[in-house]
Amino acid sequence: MGFKGEQHPGVEAPTADSQGFRLNHTMLRVKDPQKALAFYTRVFGMRVMRRLDFEEMNFSLYFLARLEDVEQVPEEQGERTVWTFSQTGLLELTHNWGTETQDDFAYHDGNAQPQGFGHICFSVPDLDAAEAWFDDNDVEFVKRSDQGKMKDVIFVKDVDGYWIEVVQADRLGALGD
Amino acid sequence: MGFKGEQHPGVEAPTADSQGFRLNHTMLRVKDPQKALAFYTRVFGMRVMRRLDFEEMNFSLYFLARLEDVEQVPEEQGERTVWTFSQTGLLELTHNWGTETQDDFAYHDGNAQPQGFGHICFSVPDLDAAEAWFDDNDVEFVKRSDQGKMKDVIFVKDVDGYWIEVVQADRLGALGD
Repeated sequence: MGFKGEQHPGVEAPTADSQGFRLNHTMLRVKDPQKALAFYTRVFGMRVMRRLDFEEMNFSLYFLARLEDVEQVPEEQGERTVWTFSQTGLLELTHNWGTETQDDFAYHDGNAQPQGFGHICFSVPDLDAAEAWFDDNDVEFVKRSDQGKMKDVIFVKDVDGYWIEVVQADRLGALGD
Repeated sequence: MGFKGEQHPGVEAPTADSQGFRLNHTMLRVKDPQKALAFYTRVFGMRVMRRLDFEEMNFSLYFLARLEDVEQVPEEQGERTVWTFSQTGLLELTHNWGTETQDDFAYHDGNAQPQGFGHICFSVPDLDAAEAWFDDNDVEFVKRSDQGKMKDVIFVKDVDGYWIEVVQADRLGALGD
């Protein structure tokens, strides 16, 4: 059963077995952490909550959160790791060491063939201001808000080419009608 | 600057331009919504908050949330769309009509070549109980909690083959040490 009795294929009601499950993060591999972190912190205002380096396996993980209140976050690193994995809506960026110096290295965005993953999406308070902000930062657009069939929806690319949808919730009330 | 003065490559402090940005959802394409929705609602306890059908373009979108309190959600569909795009930590499943009847059709998981997207991750209150619950539901494991270098971390596959990491936050305090 879907929300309040709506019928959708396959849907079952949640049981106690999944109580307390939370969608914690989405992981994307990035070629160059310097560029990816500059992009997500400057343009999208995310913060690196926890960085984990695995020297034996030659990779680093960066867990980024959107955070209005930094004071709620534990300072001690172990406690902060536990805090990080208790949240919802985080972004994890994985850097396999050395990719940043390989000229022909690029990750696959999931929208070219073979397809799979599509995008992440940010909700913003003011879509027009966001669009201007992206232009200020030379962000590459896939689709502006006045282009295509879905008006009021922006798609940009991050520095690895992954698509980011950007919407203003209260402009989407008629979507799908 | 990272959290509380930690230094990471490329990181900048957030400005007012990105105030109120929220990571709303991650979109994955799914072959058969009946199977994918059964999986995410039954095994992970998600609910379909909003379904949008685009007949002209032959696809449907399903927005799934983890939700403890259904009563907070508006009933009217337009208001519910606005609500949906105001949240954080949602999963969007895209169904391009007809893929479910094509025997040889499969989406790309991003972990086989060409790599890109890695996984989504759920945080759960009890990892051992979750592992047993996945077995009860014949969920395919990539890695159990006692396998590999990262103990206490589970990876399973969803019905399209996308990887889902599953962790219990308070068992990860020493991760990366």
